[in-house]
Amino acid sequence: MAGNILGERFVVVSFGESHGRCVGVVVDGCPAGLGISEEEIQAELDKRKPGQSIVTTTRREEDKVEILSGVFEGRTTGAPICMLIWNRDVDSSPYRAILNTPRPGHADYVARVKYGGFNDWRGGGRFSGRITAGFVMAGAIAKKLLREKLGVEVLAFTREIGGVRMRDVSVEEIRSKRYGNEVRCPDEEAAEEMKRLIVKARGEGDSLGGVVECIALNMPIGLGEPVFSSLDADLARALFAIPAVKGVEFGAGFGATRMRGSEHNDPYTIRDGKVETITNNAGGILGGLSNGMPLVLRVAFKPASSIAKHQKTVNLEEMSETTIQVPGRHDPTVVPRAVPVVEAIVAIVLADHALRAGLIGCVV
Amino acid sequence: MAGNILGERFVVVSFGESHGRCVGVVVDGCPAGLGISEEEIQAELDKRKPGQSIVTTTRREEDKVEILSGVFEGRTTGAPICMLIWNRDVDSSPYRAILNTPRPGHADYVARVKYGGFNDWRGGGRFSGRITAGFVMAGAIAKKLLREKLGVEVLAFTREIGGVRMRDVSVEEIRSKRYGNEVRCPDEEAAEEMKRLIVKARGEGDSLGGVVECIALNMPIGLGEPVFSSLDADLARALFAIPAVKGVEFGAGFGATRMRGSEHNDPYTIRDGKVETITNNAGGILGGLSNGMPLVLRVAFKPASSIAKHQKTVNLEEMSETTIQVPGRHDPTVVPRAVPVVEAIVAIVLADHALRAGLIGCVV
Amino acid sequence: MAGNILGERFVVVSFGESHGRCVGVVVDGCPAGLGISEEEIQAELDKRKPGQSIVTTTRREEDKVEILSGVFEGRTTGAPICMLIWNRDVDSSPYRAILNTPRPGHADYVARVKYGGFNDWRGGGRFSGRITAGFVMAGAIAKKLLREKLGVEVLAFTREIGGVRMRDVSVEEIRSKRYGNEVRCPDEEAAEEMKRLIVKARGEGDSLGGVVECIALNMPIGLGEPVFSSLDADLARALFAIPAVKGVEFGAGFGATRMRGSEHNDPYTIRDGKVETITNNAGGILGGLSNGMPLVLRVAFKPASSIAKHQKTVNLEEMSETTIQVPGRHDPTVVPRAVPVVEAIVAIVLADHALRAGLIGCVV
Amino acid sequence: MAGNILGERFVVVSFGESHGRCVGVVVDGCPAGLGISEEEIQAELDKRKPGQSIVTTTRREEDKVEILSGVFEGRTTGAPICMLIWNRDVDSSPYRAILNTPRPGHADYVARVKYGGFNDWRGGGRFSGRITAGFVMAGAIAKKLLREKLGVEVLAFTREIGGVRMRDVSVEEIRSKRYGNEVRCPDEEAAEEMKRLIVKARGEGDSLGGVVECIALNMPIGLGEPVFSSLDADLARALFAIPAVKGVEFGAGFGATRMRGSEHNDPYTIRDGKVETITNNAGGILGGLSNGMPLVLRVAFKPASSIAKHQKTVNLEEMSETTIQVPGRHDPTVVPRAVPVVEAIVAIVLADHALRAGLIGCVV
Repeated sequence: MAGNILGERFVVVSFGESHGRCVGVVVDGCPAGLGISEEEIQAELDKRKPGQSIVTTTRREEDKVEILSGVFEGRTTGAPICMLIWNRDVDSSPYRAILNTPRPGHADYVARVKYGGFNDWRGGGRFSGRITAGFVMAGAIAKKLLREKLGVEVLAFTREIGGVRMRDVSVEEIRSKRYGNEVRCPDEEAAEEMKRLIVKARGEGDSLGGVVECIALNMPIGLGEPVFSSLDADLARALFAIPAVKGVEFGAGFGATRMRGSEHNDPYTIRDGKVETITNNAGGILGGLSNGMPLVLRVAFKPASSIAKHQKTVNLEEMSETTIQVPGRHDPTVVPRAVPVVEAIVAIVLADHALRAGLIGCVV
Repeated sequence: MAGNILGERFVVVSFGESHGRCVGVVVDGCPAGLGISEEEIQAELDKRKPGQSIVTTTRREEDKVEILSGVFEGRTTGAPICMLIWNRDVDSSPYRAILNTPRPGHADYVARVKYGGFNDWRGGGRFSGRITAGFVMAGAIAKKLLREKLGVEVLAFTREIGGVRMRDVSVEEIRSKRYGNEVRCPDEEAAEEMKRLIVKARGEGDSLGGVVECIALNMPIGLGEPVFSSLDADLARALFAIPAVKGVEFGAGFGATRMRGSEHNDPYTIRDGKVETITNNAGGILGGLSNGMPLVLRVAFKPASSIAKHQKTVNLEEMSETTIQVPGRHDPTVVPRAVPVVEAIVAIVLADHALRAGLIGCVV
Repeated sequence: MAGNILGERFVVVSFGESHGRCVGVVVDGCPAGLGISEEEIQAELDKRKPGQSIVTTTRREEDKVEILSGVFEGRTTGAPICMLIWNRDVDSSPYRAILNTPRPGHADYVARVKYGGFNDWRGGGRFSGRITAGFVMAGAIAKKLLREKLGVEVLAFTREIGGVRMRDVSVEEIRSKRYGNEVRCPDEEAAEEMKRLIVKARGEGDSLGGVVECIALNMPIGLGEPVFSSLDADLARALFAIPAVKGVEFGAGFGATRMRGSEHNDPYTIRDGKVETITNNAGGILGGLSNGMPLVLRVAFKPASSIAKHQKTVNLEEMSETTIQVPGRHDPTVVPRAVPVVEAIVAIVLADHALRAGLIGCVV
Repeated sequence: MAGNILGERFVVVSFGESHGRCVGVVVDGCPAGLGISEEEIQAELDKRKPGQSIVTTTRREEDKVEILSGVFEGRTTGAPICMLIWNRDVDSSPYRAILNTPRPGHADYVARVKYGGFNDWRGGGRFSGRITAGFVMAGAIAKKLLREKLGVEVLAFTREIGGVRMRDVSVEEIRSKRYGNEVRCPDEEAAEEMKRLIVKARGEGDSLGGVVECIALNMPIGLGEPVFSSLDADLARALFAIPAVKGVEFGAGFGATRMRGSEHNDPYTIRDGKVETITNNAGGILGGLSNGMPLVLRVAFKPASSIAKHQKTVNLEEMSETTIQVPGRHDPTVVPRAVPVVEAIVAIVLADHALRAGLIGCVV
């Protein structure tokens, strides 16, 4: 049960449910003296807010963050930072109707077994994507810490939706264009095609999966603690906390399995007096340690589980087979809203490792 | 630095270096009363022993496991179990020769920076694949615990090497045929082709990557502690501790990103009075919890970094560009030897979560 | 910084400050299905509420607990339980006046150094005794879990104040009389004397220390995980989180240092077919494990640091010596209000170890 | 079960049993570049070696430490350091004879219950004082790290045995005289009296308890992570891992409970331009943080449990009452040999917190 805590030095504690009173997070270990405001956190939070466009759910929440502790006179104090958003636009009745008919692809059935039926099933409860709002709040602090203290920049974006894969673009394009469209894809042409597919899938009562990519620039060398807290290990662990994630890869990733060593190994060179690699198939991680090159990772999201189409399921009371049409408001794909979440999670893990490595002290 | 500890209840502590005195492991938290012998551990260890065939390195080590603590009269005592193998066949001189010319694809350079040049560079030191022998020792205990107490069976095998992907086979074939050939692939035809490619790559001074798949059968429902210690999160983290891993996916994995929800969602049915899913695109994990279906995961291994071919690198003393031909004995692919390692890691994580869930107590 | 998390399976995360918006706690790992209401938690919380009598501070707070997550339809869900009380009766101005003159016996100076002056100094901020309200909320849940699942009863009481030590009384008297007076001492005669001393000290602008004793009845055998998470080790660690604690002892404690082995060793006997010890100098713990006898521990509280008397201190701005008269409302002794806090902490640690030992599962 | 791991950044893993193959320790997280030799560790280990005088057991062990990993060319590498001593002088037959008659004051009975009878009972197995040899090995490294990087000096000594309490002496006397006699007490007169009492108790087949005091000089300000990993909390937890400890106190400790605030509060002053306190009743810790004054703590040791005198116990096979005369070689008091152990434990915790605070980085 006690799995709601992440990290060792920059520690994130998640709490709250989809249809409970709130969704929140406690950040323990953030150094003192970092300037932070509710506005800055809100800005990040707004990126994952529902109801922003035709491609996402129509649920409307204000999602106004409140900082309850750990910040004083606009700066972190070194004390645990509790933040939350209140749940308001909640109608749980559709969920009661399907209480005994678990939705395929959702955690309904396993949660019921594990928690003896005592789990909060309203809106998926603890298994709802809504809890990632807490990740984003914590990530907002992590991102600022990384940027201000180390100059590290974390950038996530949609790489692929429904099989449409964007072309490679420059870092500058990623930075400037990823939030220029509803699918958060910096390749505008691909973005258009993705949107078209999403609208089509929604029309058919179906959903799509995709891939979020995340890069981190200006990385220090040596982040990570091999072997079990290597940077890739800790990033992967944290990314799997995001609902709907089914895979994580770094650099060339699964593609590396079809390369030869002579092709995959990144040769060293000297650039501006610094040791760098010519290619970056490693995705910035060697031996579990950051090597100073850009961190590159990709996260596989399955198609959203909640679909309008009829699906086969069972009635757990009667132990009989039946069908279900999932009620409620749902995203035809979680990918666009997952972009700020992936970015937040990566920032949290990097901040934790920067603290572990002593690159940031007790006071910023 | 302190990253050599994995798990919470079945805890694994890794120590040792490639060319130091030994490679070992401490297992803390194993319940008392489990029958275990050096022979049983040795049997697992022998599966990853080098020098078994033309497809792996020619380094010869006895790799005889010694249990130093925690086992008394053939049974675990509840005390920490320290196990190790001594290093014997060691010649570090080739590594001294390349001390200032980091091998592309290896951790040489990052380790030197992180540890201020004090890292043990002989044979890759702490970054050598040899440390996975410790994982296998711990995994042998975890596997027995899972088998005896829960009936869980963990089976890893080579799914793909050098782009040759085996066909789907039955569980029975996996069980009986995976160790029937040098590449640990239960599809004999594919295995032959893989071997051919490996021999060819070796002849060209090059190396190949591949994919190890692992399944776990007879899984209980509810293993995993969402959100940050979900079963997939903890498995992914642990698997990235294996050198050369660049990706991890569950069930349909990255393939799920191109499926539609109606296709990917596993419909529920009732079989023999039990709730099951008809398909298993989820790979046995929903919402971070095991759902009772077989666990299915795949691990991407990059091509082995050590190749005979000339590669570009730099001289760190002179800060100049140069080339390197990596000396020593190396596997043209790590995949076959990684099979028992993946199996061990999966078993360790499952045992940890079985203990966390209270499915196994202080005494077996 | 990241020290606000306690426990492994029943995990307590503390947040909030004395004069911030709230004081709260997250409990992660509580099994699902435990009936719990705000009223039950409030009942515990009221025991440490200020302003109850002449012997404690006159600060008035409603201290109404709110459960924000993890409880649904009156039962725990297995999800993290966030609870808090809002701060209302706050006047921080006296603290601003003494910002540069650290109060002797308080954390003002060290906190300023550690957190670079960014710590919230209002009312002692994070170092205020008020944060123990969070411990009591979490302890209320732990106590109920222990009582309902294991029949374990935890009882704390004032053993000594200002040198007045109560006589030994029966368990029944402890249970029925400890909350019968303002000092929470089950020996009424001693209680009267303690009160007299407290009123006298307050009149003199001074303060008193004392000893809180805690017992736990109906203990299972074998709680504790030697050597570093032995039951006494984990209890001691947690008890030192309470402000003003300067010592912890078990059973005969420091008195044992003056006994002989033949006197201190508790001989075994058989009572009602069960193995017990005739005496209980061990305080219910042998080798770091509970032995089934009552747990007995004592906690030393220093005299309250905030006193009205003039004290020598320094001006940190001018780096000159000066004096201070501590403003604000203060308890002349923290001991009576510490009684429910000690009880809560002991319950939390016992619940954690009961879960670790598998005595309680994922669902109650 | 999994309680054999201490610390977060300087992590100590204990393994081994009294009569098993060895007693050892893994240190994970020690920075790279620290010069360390087996001789230095041996020098510490020799201080707790048995058989040194009439006041300790006659068991003879070479106790030669071997470093198995983590040190290369005389310096730490940043990798986990495994160290052990082999057990040689072992005769377990007396323990088999008393297998069913638990020794009063020992863990025999509770261990048997907790571990289902599978625990290694030879020589007390995992509950033997011998496992503290591992603490001393780890402490040797911690002490060197503290000394070299921070100038912190840790000094433990016998404060009291059998009720004989040494007078207060200067730090210089502590430093120079504590190892000048067999009881490790820097007050020679008291030491003589302690020795006399020990010899008398041994002659009577009995044993004595006592108090070990430990100070740490040149402490930095701000070590500790309130509230649950405060410096006193973490020290107390770790000290309770030493067998026979029944109490821990800081500064005035339990004596503080009888002082008034005006007497106990340490007033601030300025000395050599630095803020200090005039007295040190706090023992160097305020609000759970080191305040720059000397750390002062005391540890209560019960009288040694193994005595020659007849004691009442039970026969667990026959569930009948009987008596026992404990066989084997035993110390009439553990206090003198506990001195280096307390020193080691304190050093380990301080090193861990120095790393947590970022005062020491990845490379020394």
